Amino acid sequence: MTKDKSLGLVTVATLTAVLAFSLVEIVSADGHEPYEAAFNKDGELVRPAGWREWVFVGSPLTPNSLNGGAAPFPEFHSVYIDPESWAHYKKTGEFREGTMFAKELTLVGDTAATSGIGFFNGKLQGFEIAHKDSKRYSDDTGGWAYYSFGHHDEPYNSTAAAMPTASCAACHTASAAEDMVFTQYYPILKNAKGAGDAAAGTGG
Amino acid sequence: MTKDKSLGLVTVATLTAVLAFSLVEIVSADGHEPYEAAFNKDGELVRPAGWREWVFVGSPLTPNSLNGGAAPFPEFHSVYIDPESWAHYKKTGEFREGTMFAKELTLVGDTAATSGIGFFNGKLQGFEIAHKDSKRYSDDTGGWAYYSFGHHDEPYNSTAAAMPTASCAACHTASAAEDMVFTQYYPILKNAKGAGDAAAGTGG
Repeated sequence: MTKDKSLGLVTVATLTAVLAFSLVEIVSADGHEPYEAAFNKDGELVRPAGWREWVFVGSPLTPNSLNGGAAPFPEFHSVYIDPESWAHYKKTGEFREGTMFAKELTLVGDTAATSGIGFFNGKLQGFEIAHKDSKRYSDDTGGWAYYSFGHHDEPYNSTAAAMPTASCAACHTASAAEDMVFTQYYPILKNAKGAGDAAAGTGG
Repeated sequence: MTKDKSLGLVTVATLTAVLAFSLVEIVSADGHEPYEAAFNKDGELVRPAGWREWVFVGSPLTPNSLNGGAAPFPEFHSVYIDPESWAHYKKTGEFREGTMFAKELTLVGDTAATSGIGFFNGKLQGFEIAHKDSKRYSDDTGGWAYYSFGHHDEPYNSTAAAMPTASCAACHTASAAEDMVFTQYYPILKNAKGAGDAAAGTGG
C-alpha cells in the first residue's frame, strides 16, 4: 500500500513535469511568447514588445545622400520577422496569417572606418510594422496593413493607425515579389523558403 | 491525515513543475541551447549551428564600388551576437567570456527600388566569427580570436583556423570602442548596454 502510494506520487510528479515542460515549449517557442497583434480602442496597432530579438532578414540602405537629402526610408532599413512566422516560412514557404515584419530605420553615421569606405549605422530613426491579417484588412492591400510608429529616435510611438493604401500598399502591390513582401531584396528569406532547419544557419 | 497526504502531493507536484520550468528556462533561454564553442582535433573552430537566429546588432556597408572594386569585407556586414551573451550584455554591459559575434557578408544586388536609390542585399558572400575566450587566446589580441569561414556563397566552410593577429585583431585593438568590439558603429549595442529588458524593443 505504501509502495502503491509512492508510485502514484512519482507518476503524478512525472506527469506534472511533462505537462509543465510541454506548456513551456508551447509558450516559449524560439524564446518568445507567440506574438498576437494587439489593438487599442481606436483600432490602432500597439507596438509589440521584444521585436528587436525577432529574426533578422536583411538591411537595405537608401542613403539620404543619394535621394536628394530625404530618402522615403531614412536610411538603413533593418527588417525582422516574428519568430513564429519565421518558423512557419522555413517549413511551408508561406507567410502565415498574423505574420509581422518589423522595420527599424537607422541614420548613416560614419562613412569611413578601418574596414573601408561606406556607411555605418548611426542614430536610430524610426520604426514600422507590416502585418498580414486577411480578415482584418482589405483585399485591396493584399490582406496586409502598414504602420509607422514615427520617424525619430526611441522611444517610438506606442500605437499607430494603419497607413493609407497609397502610402505603402501601392508599392508593395506593384513591385513585391511574393505576397506583398519584397523577398527579391532579402536573400535570407529567399533561401529560407521551405528550407527547414537549414535556414537557421547550419553548423560545421 | 488524508488532507496532509493530499497537500504533500500538491506540494511535490508544484515543486516538480517549478523545477521542470526552471530547467527548461536554463536550457532554452531565448530559444537556443547555450552556445559553447566547439573545436576540431586541429584546433579549428566549428561553425556554430543556428547562428542566423541569433540577435542582430547592425549592418554596416562597405560597397566594393567605393573601395576600388575590392572592399576588405564585401559588402554588407550583418552582425549577430549569440543570445546568452546578448542577455548578459543587456544585464551587465559587458561581453562575457564565450561571447560570439557572427558576421554574414552579402553582396550588393540592386541599387534602385521603389523605396529609393541605394543598396539592396544581393547574394550571400561569406561568414566570419569573433570569439572571446581569455584563457584560450593571447593577451595580444585582447582575449579574442577571429575566424573566416570563406568569402563565398553558402555552404560556408565547416571549420576555420584563427586568423593571424595582423589580419583582424590589429584593427580591433587600434579602433574598437569597447573590449575589441566596434560598438561605435552599432547603436543597438550602445543602447542595450546595461539597459535590461528595454533593449529587446519595448512594447506600446
